[in-house]
Amino acid sequence: MTLNIGVIGCGMIGRDHTRRIQQVLSGAQVVALSDVNRANAETVRRDLAPDATLFDTGEALIAAPEVHAVLVTSWGATHEPYVLAAIAAGKPVFCEKPLATTSEGARRIVEAEVAHGSRLVQVGFMRRYDAGYIALKAAVQQHTGAPIMVHAAHRNPAVPEAYVTPMAIHDTLIHEIDVFRWLLDDDYVSARVLYPRKASRSHSQLRDPQVVVLETQKGVLIDVEVFVNCAYGYDIQCEVVGEEGTARLPEPMAIDLRLGALRQNAILTDWKDRFVASYDVELNDFIAAASKGGATGPSAWDGYAAAVTSDACVQAQESDGQAVAIVLPVRPALYN
Amino acid sequence: MTLNIGVIGCGMIGRDHTRRIQQVLSGAQVVALSDVNRANAETVRRDLAPDATLFDTGEALIAAPEVHAVLVTSWGATHEPYVLAAIAAGKPVFCEKPLATTSEGARRIVEAEVAHGSRLVQVGFMRRYDAGYIALKAAVQQHTGAPIMVHAAHRNPAVPEAYVTPMAIHDTLIHEIDVFRWLLDDDYVSARVLYPRKASRSHSQLRDPQVVVLETQKGVLIDVEVFVNCAYGYDIQCEVVGEEGTARLPEPMAIDLRLGALRQNAILTDWKDRFVASYDVELNDFIAAASKGGATGPSAWDGYAAAVTSDACVQAQESDGQAVAIVLPVRPALYN
Amino acid sequence: MTLNIGVIGCGMIGRDHTRRIQQVLSGAQVVALSDVNRANAETVRRDLAPDATLFDTGEALIAAPEVHAVLVTSWGATHEPYVLAAIAAGKPVFCEKPLATTSEGARRIVEAEVAHGSRLVQVGFMRRYDAGYIALKAAVQQHTGAPIMVHAAHRNPAVPEAYVTPMAIHDTLIHEIDVFRWLLDDDYVSARVLYPRKASRSHSQLRDPQVVVLETQKGVLIDVEVFVNCAYGYDIQCEVVGEEGTARLPEPMAIDLRLGALRQNAILTDWKDRFVASYDVELNDFIAAASKGGATGPSAWDGYAAAVTSDACVQAQESDGQAVAIVLPVRPALYN
Amino acid sequence: MTLNIGVIGCGMIGRDHTRRIQQVLSGAQVVALSDVNRANAETVRRDLAPDATLFDTGEALIAAPEVHAVLVTSWGATHEPYVLAAIAAGKPVFCEKPLATTSEGARRIVEAEVAHGSRLVQVGFMRRYDAGYIALKAAVQQHTGAPIMVHAAHRNPAVPEAYVTPMAIHDTLIHEIDVFRWLLDDDYVSARVLYPRKASRSHSQLRDPQVVVLETQKGVLIDVEVFVNCAYGYDIQCEVVGEEGTARLPEPMAIDLRLGALRQNAILTDWKDRFVASYDVELNDFIAAASKGGATGPSAWDGYAAAVTSDACVQAQESDGQAVAIVLPVRPALYN
Repeated sequence: MTLNIGVIGCGMIGRDHTRRIQQVLSGAQVVALSDVNRANAETVRRDLAPDATLFDTGEALIAAPEVHAVLVTSWGATHEPYVLAAIAAGKPVFCEKPLATTSEGARRIVEAEVAHGSRLVQVGFMRRYDAGYIALKAAVQQHTGAPIMVHAAHRNPAVPEAYVTPMAIHDTLIHEIDVFRWLLDDDYVSARVLYPRKASRSHSQLRDPQVVVLETQKGVLIDVEVFVNCAYGYDIQCEVVGEEGTARLPEPMAIDLRLGALRQNAILTDWKDRFVASYDVELNDFIAAASKGGATGPSAWDGYAAAVTSDACVQAQESDGQAVAIVLPVRPALYN
Repeated sequence: MTLNIGVIGCGMIGRDHTRRIQQVLSGAQVVALSDVNRANAETVRRDLAPDATLFDTGEALIAAPEVHAVLVTSWGATHEPYVLAAIAAGKPVFCEKPLATTSEGARRIVEAEVAHGSRLVQVGFMRRYDAGYIALKAAVQQHTGAPIMVHAAHRNPAVPEAYVTPMAIHDTLIHEIDVFRWLLDDDYVSARVLYPRKASRSHSQLRDPQVVVLETQKGVLIDVEVFVNCAYGYDIQCEVVGEEGTARLPEPMAIDLRLGALRQNAILTDWKDRFVASYDVELNDFIAAASKGGATGPSAWDGYAAAVTSDACVQAQESDGQAVAIVLPVRPALYN
Repeated sequence: MTLNIGVIGCGMIGRDHTRRIQQVLSGAQVVALSDVNRANAETVRRDLAPDATLFDTGEALIAAPEVHAVLVTSWGATHEPYVLAAIAAGKPVFCEKPLATTSEGARRIVEAEVAHGSRLVQVGFMRRYDAGYIALKAAVQQHTGAPIMVHAAHRNPAVPEAYVTPMAIHDTLIHEIDVFRWLLDDDYVSARVLYPRKASRSHSQLRDPQVVVLETQKGVLIDVEVFVNCAYGYDIQCEVVGEEGTARLPEPMAIDLRLGALRQNAILTDWKDRFVASYDVELNDFIAAASKGGATGPSAWDGYAAAVTSDACVQAQESDGQAVAIVLPVRPALYN
Repeated sequence: MTLNIGVIGCGMIGRDHTRRIQQVLSGAQVVALSDVNRANAETVRRDLAPDATLFDTGEALIAAPEVHAVLVTSWGATHEPYVLAAIAAGKPVFCEKPLATTSEGARRIVEAEVAHGSRLVQVGFMRRYDAGYIALKAAVQQHTGAPIMVHAAHRNPAVPEAYVTPMAIHDTLIHEIDVFRWLLDDDYVSARVLYPRKASRSHSQLRDPQVVVLETQKGVLIDVEVFVNCAYGYDIQCEVVGEEGTARLPEPMAIDLRLGALRQNAILTDWKDRFVASYDVELNDFIAAASKGGATGPSAWDGYAAAVTSDACVQAQESDGQAVAIVLPVRPALYN
């Protein structure tokens, strides 16, 4: 049976997920579209989903009986109410990050889902679906022994002037925050931010680079370099050090060239290319679980934990190298 | 519009392609199944395509009006008549290799398709859809300058007793034969086979390893080591040497481990894992072209050229290091 | 003209340097030997330097007119008086690390050399002579742009029970402390130590692993993992992140093997093998400078700076993640 | 005791070996120099060996009683008479390649040495002293199982117009010819040369590249690409395929850089840099053996075998892909 999906938010990401559902993946179709700017929704309908119905509001789309499941790809500030509405309607909902713009908002979603009694929400943390991270997690479980440290880097060639210091957490580190919880099957207890001198390309409202140090409940010490003006490319590094050995995230596939006195492999420069394959797997997972009326991927709890951790990291950015505690309430049984 | 596919041959490969169409890919469904052993078709229907109709013969399946396109995944000797029947019915047909068991048979398919006047046949040379080979071809076109040499290896950890010397060509080298024609956009003019001493694991009816040397019309010299008892893993190597530099096929993704005094990366041992992702892409390409009534991937001509080249290579295996000429007729305009 | 060298301390290192001078390097000979245990000196004379004179004390050896230059390879606590005696005698002296067992002792050597008015002392920081670090420094100067961060690791497979927490600084990190000052042409301003959970192999008197964070005057942030029970091998890692890109210390040469379903390269397990080639270069440098009556390698000042930094790191080990300031007096002009 | 060496031929190589003996290595000194152009000898004496005596002829130098051992680094055509003279004088002699310009000449040297009754000659095949090849040989003996195939390449960025087709054997492949005999502990039985199209940079008197195929007595099949206009760098590749796995010659040390959207490592462009470290080891070995009155490195027999093989390869260059037999007489017991 085909899963009928309604998409709220027809910008770049909403459009791309619609293409994925209509042209790449099996088992679902986009039957409803909505965007605060109706022209966006019309364009996506014309190009990708000619049979879809346009809705004036996300709420109306969620309420429509032919819509089985919802994708929330609208502006961040609208995520919380749409997700709450979907939960209220008992419909599976895939929400792009952030789940909510505040940890309190994420908490409200968790509470709503717990009240509902079963999982409906999947948050768009796509790295968990990346073949490299999946292989890394398997290697950690099978080969390295229990993890003790993680050394990581998240490098971007450049950012616009609008990118200010807290965005290094909210927009950039957020991916590491989620994926390391998953990778290590662990939770954070503290965050600390250390700064080298500012890079010469760093803008006036941005302290770049920075090294974020996270500690986990199991005692793993994680250092993540966040460097968004690294100039040379988009580069994600992750090395896990365990009791028996180390494992490292693979480089993206690249041809070995020998040319002009260099052995060389291309490095990606656009973040959109780095995890592109994982979006297909992520949505496929959503379709499979939503077809059974639920959700199985990154949960509302994961979104909440990421929000709480982000808040602590942003506070740590202003704490002169001091550790900031990260405290989560008891995890509801729904998420065990 | 959904493409209705009929599958002839419900063994391992037919089953796997059915799963792909039903559960992974968008735009098509399996509506008809047939197998010389009806139980096979029933199992596939039960597990993967409950709405499909079973047909007693491949010919009946091909004739059924609800079948828009055909997959031939039956026993090799039956490929030729089924493909000819599909062409006669004007239906797009995807045929697993070999296209025919003789080069004459492949020639008859080419002639039938030429008589039909447009392409209908796609042959299952999946390596052309492998991300590594695609990147290699792009690197050759963009970076290495015009190719002059190719050094390659096709290694298998072990083969059963039933694998005899000519199978090193028909079952193993066949993939290199096709993919290098595509990679270099070239045709072969001669083949030569050189033998080192037999490996100690080589069976009595098998001369293993061997080095096949192919020359192309443009003057590229290709050496391919075929070693099917290499013991250590399934390993496909390919280096192109051009006027300006070299490019090498990437290794499959593997985690860098440091463990037990070794930096180490796993090597695959089962050939089925090596190009597994390319099957999805290959069938997706078939669905896209067949939905428009045609075919665009590896053609009947490519299947014919591979068959003629294989024949020459097998002859070269018995020619004591002498070059055997490879002569193809003029390529019909349909395939330009 | 051949440089006549006297060696004080005929244990493993003294013996090895004697072999180097007698059998490998050009331009010098060992003419005098001394050891607190005379039998050691006799053995080295018999095996490697039959023409050498034995002296009862290091002081007597230093005073002997036929001795042009001195190697101090005795027990650490004796380094300071021997080096001071060599300075007093105006003779070039190569001193294995530590230059002195306290930073005050190292300071006294600096003051004596400054009073002498020209350089006589070379400290045995051999990593500066390692081809990998030399290439890394060149890459940083030519390619990466100004350094901003360094990520490093110093891993040992195992240590004996006698190895306690401060030795992670004095015996292990000491090499990074010196080589990074040289690599970056910079000085430290603070040290901080962070701990993950203890590794299960860590002994009761050892907190292992630890991450030492150093800041430099130019604002470079350095993190060094020190893990002396890493199990898998002796492994030295160093990545410099600069304004334009990154550079990484090369791995020691190792054969690429494909064997048993693994691509593999051996990792060293004994630290003595890791920088073995640099000892030749180091002593060659000493011979060249000492032949002209001076010294040019790692200086007494470098030894002093390393001692001050080590003290701060040991203090930081007990400071619960707080930064400890590292303050050096003004560098005497002799060392500019 | 110091070995007194006389150097015949004071060009680039003779000068470099003199520097090595005088300034780098232990245990020898250059006491005599000779060059057909006396000014060359005077320059080397002035710069590197002020105490050396100049001789008008190589023969006079060899005859001088203070000369214990001889280095022949003169013009190739003079090697044979000088080596024969050294043998007649019973003095150890290191001879740069070629040992003689003809295989008959090399044969005469073998016969003279056999008549003398003990080894005196070391031929300048320095690759046997390269740390990479030594590690490769160890890996083959310990890990890969018995060798079955070797895939190799010898690439040079460019050659002058004077470099004609047979020089691809005499000046380039000669190194592989020797080092593979040593690596495999084997002898050749046939050679074959295959040509792809000429590279566009290949000069009119040069057929470049070429693939030389050698077979050994033990049945190993070796293919060597010789490409002296490869443009991108000086690159030596060697992979041994054995019964259990493969081993590959390591790349020269190079810093991993990430820069400008490329992971990159420098490739050497000047052949002189590739094996520079092995010259020291080679001469050190000569000094050690010559100090005992003999020779232990690559022998006159090895030089003869290389000459016979080279002749066969040059003949094979003109034999249209046919194998040319390589026949050596019985190896004298002196060389076992």
